[in-house]
Amino acid sequence: MLRKDYLLDRWVVIATSRKRRPTDFVKKPVETKAKVCPLCPGRERMTPPAVLLYKISDGRLVKEKDSDGFRHKDWLVRCVPNLYPAFTPPTRDDVRRKRGLSEAWGHHEVLIESPNHDEHPGNARVSQLIHVVNAYIDRLKTLSAKPYVEYVSIFRNHGVDAGASLSHAHSQIIAMPFVPTTVKAELKASRISYRKNGGCVFCDIIERERRSERFIWENQSFVVFAPWASVHPLEFWIFPKKHVSTPAKMRKKEVEAFAKTLRICLGALKTLVNNPAYNYGFHIAPAKDAEAKKYYHWHLEVYPKLAIWAGFEKSTGVYINTVPPEDSAEELRKAAVKEEKKLG
Amino acid sequence: MLRKDYLLDRWVVIATSRKRRPTDFVKKPVETKAKVCPLCPGRERMTPPAVLLYKISDGRLVKEKDSDGFRHKDWLVRCVPNLYPAFTPPTRDDVRRKRGLSEAWGHHEVLIESPNHDEHPGNARVSQLIHVVNAYIDRLKTLSAKPYVEYVSIFRNHGVDAGASLSHAHSQIIAMPFVPTTVKAELKASRISYRKNGGCVFCDIIERERRSERFIWENQSFVVFAPWASVHPLEFWIFPKKHVSTPAKMRKKEVEAFAKTLRICLGALKTLVNNPAYNYGFHIAPAKDAEAKKYYHWHLEVYPKLAIWAGFEKSTGVYINTVPPEDSAEELRKAAVKEEKKLG
Repeated sequence: MLRKDYLLDRWVVIATSRKRRPTDFVKKPVETKAKVCPLCPGRERMTPPAVLLYKISDGRLVKEKDSDGFRHKDWLVRCVPNLYPAFTPPTRDDVRRKRGLSEAWGHHEVLIESPNHDEHPGNARVSQLIHVVNAYIDRLKTLSAKPYVEYVSIFRNHGVDAGASLSHAHSQIIAMPFVPTTVKAELKASRISYRKNGGCVFCDIIERERRSERFIWENQSFVVFAPWASVHPLEFWIFPKKHVSTPAKMRKKEVEAFAKTLRICLGALKTLVNNPAYNYGFHIAPAKDAEAKKYYHWHLEVYPKLAIWAGFEKSTGVYINTVPPEDSAEELRKAAVKEEKKLG
Repeated sequence: MLRKDYLLDRWVVIATSRKRRPTDFVKKPVETKAKVCPLCPGRERMTPPAVLLYKISDGRLVKEKDSDGFRHKDWLVRCVPNLYPAFTPPTRDDVRRKRGLSEAWGHHEVLIESPNHDEHPGNARVSQLIHVVNAYIDRLKTLSAKPYVEYVSIFRNHGVDAGASLSHAHSQIIAMPFVPTTVKAELKASRISYRKNGGCVFCDIIERERRSERFIWENQSFVVFAPWASVHPLEFWIFPKKHVSTPAKMRKKEVEAFAKTLRICLGALKTLVNNPAYNYGFHIAPAKDAEAKKYYHWHLEVYPKLAIWAGFEKSTGVYINTVPPEDSAEELRKAAVKEEKKLG
């Protein structure tokens, strides 16, 4: 069966001839070699100074920074520049000369999500994930405000197969000088729909999928479903129910609800297929695009790494998924209920 | 440094902070388990009947087919339906009811490239690769002529990391009912350029890259270079020098020249980084698009699998490549010269 993404010109063949169940993908996780972890507490000198960290001081949560000569201890989360950045800030001279798009101006940061090496979202304390989400928001706001930044990408690579070179729980944040291809295409399609129909196309999608076989989980603020044209087995998307284009203005209650959603859905994925590798990425309206507020709806897309994109996918831009999203949703739905019970 | 593809809205960050050389990617190849190989001679009953095979009969090369009850032996190459097809032919009833795009109508075939399990293009006899190329062309012509086929994708997955589930030398052929995203975008961009400038934009690219630092190898009929916005370390593209939109009409001399180009360049890649996994895919003008002949230029894109697309790439559609294509070309250029000498 052929399916097209809600908005993108992205086609997926749902190929069921192998009759694979989502749980057929269980395999032994690849272990990274036990090396000295540069992200663990006590090794703060192995990273550049933190641009942001949270810690408890006099019984209160405070935000701090390291300096060249000083590293804070006893942090809860810690955000440091990537030692091998894909994007780097312009010098003053660069900005003056305005060399524009040919240079990869921006920032590339690593958010250390916990002092505990293995406290990943699938098994973390919700209280810890609240710090992670708040740190995402803090960096999103700070980086978006820089004059040479047009987009901030927040993403997570989990497991060797999904490109994580360090096993300590961490996310990455890239601030970049242009709006990336996928988000640009989503913005364009949702703008066209808004001008034609007057509403947010994502709000319609959410309402439809909530009541479909692809529904997975929801709470007061968020809804989770397997997308109609899922590219990956067990892929799921998390949307805020309220129409809002960026997570930058989430309230305390919403941050808690989002942290709990992450915990339950990534916990369900972890339980279901034995801690698989996965990637996730936020899709957010660019802070400097005032009009996008009306028609863009921020969300998080989670891509389990259970299959390999091979010659067909790479040369055609068309994808083959051997598991129907309805089957993925059914398994994740059951697993999410169990996770919620475990959490209490 | 930021680079955009010649035609596609595809951006790549050439991120050199890790200072990686192409040869840093050498690793131990992943071995597939030694199982009974269903593609080896003597096991023809393990596959569906061949839709095409070449064999020598009375001293002449002949084209044959298997039937349900009969399998030919002593074949040179053999093309069989994939046991787990992503695309399947419509029934007569389907065609009558014309259910159109929602069904994945088409064909999915496996081309067994040699009776010798390990005769991959990087180490094959050129005489054997000539059979492979001729079989590609035969299937391309036959499948393109079917009324429900709009595009034929010919691709190869080499190595477990690149998605090859069988280690016997083989390619895959998918006939599909629509022109895939990437080719559609290339067609659109080259059509716009043709209408504006009157020539083939690929002919211009070839001429420019032949004289650039990204040049790798050429013979009388083909030129090989690392593309300006290479997505992968050691990526290279093979173009016919002559303006031609499809390989379907290659002459004998050109088939030989193409087989030799494959052998030398894939041999160079193999030697350089210890038989890495890779994918390749043909880009061909759709047979039913008469106008595309004027502005489309067929080619083969080879993607070594030396890095992992992670959360950033998957959620933004923007790529990070840690090796500049100029460095990749330099290494491949030297290795190709050595391969050519070895071949004699």
